[in-house]
Amino acid sequence: MKKLLLAALVLSANVFAADTFDAQTIKVTEQLKEKSLNSELAYDIVARLTTEVGPRMAGTPKDLEAVDWAMKELQRLGFDKVWKEPAKFPAWLRYSESAEIILPSKQPIHITALGNSVSTPKDGTRAPIVIFETLEELEAAPENAAKGKIVFINYRMDRSLDGNSYGPAVQARNRGAVVASQKGAVAFMMRSVSTAKHRFAHTGGNHYKDGIKAIPAVALANPDADQIERLLQLGHKVEVNLNVQAESKGMGTSYNVIGEFTGTEKPNEYVLLGAHLDSWDLGTGALDDGAGVAIITAAAKHISELTKTKRSVRVVLFAAEEQGLWGAKAYVKKHQDELGNIVAAAESDFGADLIYAVESRVASNSLPTVRAIAKHLKDLGVKYDARNNAFGGPDLIPFKDSKVVPIFSLHQDGTDYFDYHHTADDTLDKIDPVKLNQNVAVYAVFAYLAAQSQTKMIGK
Amino acid sequence: MKKLLLAALVLSANVFAADTFDAQTIKVTEQLKEKSLNSELAYDIVARLTTEVGPRMAGTPKDLEAVDWAMKELQRLGFDKVWKEPAKFPAWLRYSESAEIILPSKQPIHITALGNSVSTPKDGTRAPIVIFETLEELEAAPENAAKGKIVFINYRMDRSLDGNSYGPAVQARNRGAVVASQKGAVAFMMRSVSTAKHRFAHTGGNHYKDGIKAIPAVALANPDADQIERLLQLGHKVEVNLNVQAESKGMGTSYNVIGEFTGTEKPNEYVLLGAHLDSWDLGTGALDDGAGVAIITAAAKHISELTKTKRSVRVVLFAAEEQGLWGAKAYVKKHQDELGNIVAAAESDFGADLIYAVESRVASNSLPTVRAIAKHLKDLGVKYDARNNAFGGPDLIPFKDSKVVPIFSLHQDGTDYFDYHHTADDTLDKIDPVKLNQNVAVYAVFAYLAAQSQTKMIGK
Ligand SMILES: [Zn+2]
Ligand SMILES: [Zn+2]
Repeated sequence: MKKLLLAALVLSANVFAADTFDAQTIKVTEQLKEKSLNSELAYDIVARLTTEVGPRMAGTPKDLEAVDWAMKELQRLGFDKVWKEPAKFPAWLRYSESAEIILPSKQPIHITALGNSVSTPKDGTRAPIVIFETLEELEAAPENAAKGKIVFINYRMDRSLDGNSYGPAVQARNRGAVVASQKGAVAFMMRSVSTAKHRFAHTGGNHYKDGIKAIPAVALANPDADQIERLLQLGHKVEVNLNVQAESKGMGTSYNVIGEFTGTEKPNEYVLLGAHLDSWDLGTGALDDGAGVAIITAAAKHISELTKTKRSVRVVLFAAEEQGLWGAKAYVKKHQDELGNIVAAAESDFGADLIYAVESRVASNSLPTVRAIAKHLKDLGVKYDARNNAFGGPDLIPFKDSKVVPIFSLHQDGTDYFDYHHTADDTLDKIDPVKLNQNVAVYAVFAYLAAQSQTKMIGK
Repeated sequence: MKKLLLAALVLSANVFAADTFDAQTIKVTEQLKEKSLNSELAYDIVARLTTEVGPRMAGTPKDLEAVDWAMKELQRLGFDKVWKEPAKFPAWLRYSESAEIILPSKQPIHITALGNSVSTPKDGTRAPIVIFETLEELEAAPENAAKGKIVFINYRMDRSLDGNSYGPAVQARNRGAVVASQKGAVAFMMRSVSTAKHRFAHTGGNHYKDGIKAIPAVALANPDADQIERLLQLGHKVEVNLNVQAESKGMGTSYNVIGEFTGTEKPNEYVLLGAHLDSWDLGTGALDDGAGVAIITAAAKHISELTKTKRSVRVVLFAAEEQGLWGAKAYVKKHQDELGNIVAAAESDFGADLIYAVESRVASNSLPTVRAIAKHLKDLGVKYDARNNAFGGPDLIPFKDSKVVPIFSLHQDGTDYFDYHHTADDTLDKIDPVKLNQNVAVYAVFAYLAAQSQTKMIGK
């Protein structure tokens, strides 16, 4: 018993020695917070990206413009290395979209085509509506339940701090058109994956299935979904005309834009900070994901302004995230053999509201390092979430799957995120510069301490 | 001195006797509050009007549909008399509108044509932007200051409780295109008259002047005005292409829809409750002015459910307000000789937020009656505003000009009104049924007591 206790104490002492940062490191950490919280850099980055480039959907010329813009921006900021790596993705273009209620009486409704949607005929697809409250209800409906009709899934997304209500809501967007087609529908429409009252439809990926006829797929703004719901409740037969003109363009090429501040002691080992450079085409992609681009870029820059790091700090601006994580997949494929060099990875892709928690996904013997880092985030309002089951962000899914990369979630308050996500209303004015800078400070401290840590963390 | 005091006391007693309502009237007043606050009628009216009819701009078939709908609705509710009176107005139709920034780099911007705007050529009007912060700044600019350019007035409307910030902001909308044309501009655009951050452009009346070339006139959503402002601040030359397709259609005809519960003692004398039935074409006109239609209709109905009134209570749903108060003007013209029969007039046309004050515009010897009525609104949260200078609402301007009609403002909280006003986002979900019912209660008590008052109020 005594021996066991001693062993535990020694272990504890070792852990302490390994993962408590020295006085100089702590001093730089405090300077980093102050610099990040008082800088205008991140806001300036997202302001210029969303203003000078604006919308930048992969497959459009604007995306390549964004790649050039980002290369120049990282060079301008003095990253030690700046380069790009190609990523292929299925390109899709939106040309036009509109819809109106025809019966009981004509009125326009606000829709947007879901990503990959096929076109309607030139004059639209006109049919009666059949309503289902959930995807499950549609799935449970008999064969031909929607024969010749437009399926309308009316599921309302809940508001939540951590965004976990997105998962259940997004199922209908991902698979609704396939199930509707299986039930005989001529088109698919859904209440937007949205928490807003405003009259913006939310786009997002929709996926067809081989062997099942692809039908046009659109989302309605919440007030328009309400409108159709009420017309049905009032006992009217509702007929809608949907018009979507869009085109799949085969495989396109975009680029992950990468910038690195190279470490002095272990340059091959690096902290990976991720965000995605592309956006949907409707808004200017301020929250999704201009904010992320700005946060991680400014965080890396601020570290470099104060010190050289032992390990490298690498910023990866992923390509074609919205089309299905194509930049992230390309990165993991290209860097497959060296993923073990990543000592920590985090992605900022959830808007610009405050970070309230840090969570890891690491081997258990790396947890002391995690806790040592988390300690220095506390006064930024970030608590330690001990679940050690971090998701990390969409672009980190392929990294997570490798099981070797230590993944981190710097959890942001997502209460309002789905008011704007994937809409025309995702514009710069939705970003609070003070909250943005809290994010920069958290990412900067996180990256700096992970780069300096004596123990190299490992994934699980 | 003693004699004077006695006279004052006698006068005061007379006033007291004349303007304090009897026990039965006070009992009905209290029942009216309870009924109004707990009814679903007003919300049901605005829900069905905005859902079954939806947008109803004068000059479109939807407006005439709204007239039919309203006639049937007033009949269904059992008004003693329901009729309509024609009103002519200059009809204008919006066909399409779009805009994009061409230089420094293409991106769409969200605009809406102002009412009466002429069309651009089929492919749009493309020109560099010249920015002015205010209409006054444009007016002060030299001749040809905007030669061959698109004038952009960047004035930001303030948020205010009483909506008084609308006045200064709306000048640019009313006259901006004329002044821009005088300075050589090929088109006029302005930051929307809006307090919202959301990406909706706000339409509204624009007026040309004989002898000055009519140029296309549009409003930008606030985020898009920000975008152009930032591009200019970043030092870019900004070129925009505006495309508006619209048409003036000569004089059209719509109808004031009128319903009356007829008084038992003085049927020719009546309380006039006004709202406008028409809306702009972009939204469903829930706040502007479906709410007003619902509030006054429900108020009159609730009175009738409890009692007959001495004087009549007349609901007037004005036509073509948005085109320039054409229904109100037609009403005043037709009823010119009998305007003296109106014992009190109030219009509900400022959304559905709470009423916080009542203000009159009456001859001074009618003020005791005003105060007697105001006393019974106090527990509904309505204070007495003694300025006695009520505006009354836009459709009451022609009534006010007659100087014989006692005008009332039941002042609503307008803090959020200009977030939605004249946009596609003016939809039912913006109405809080509890606040709506407070409005109904205030209008019901106001109308009932004005109808019962022993003293007939007179205007000034
Ligand atoms: Zn994203
Ligand atoms: Zn109005």
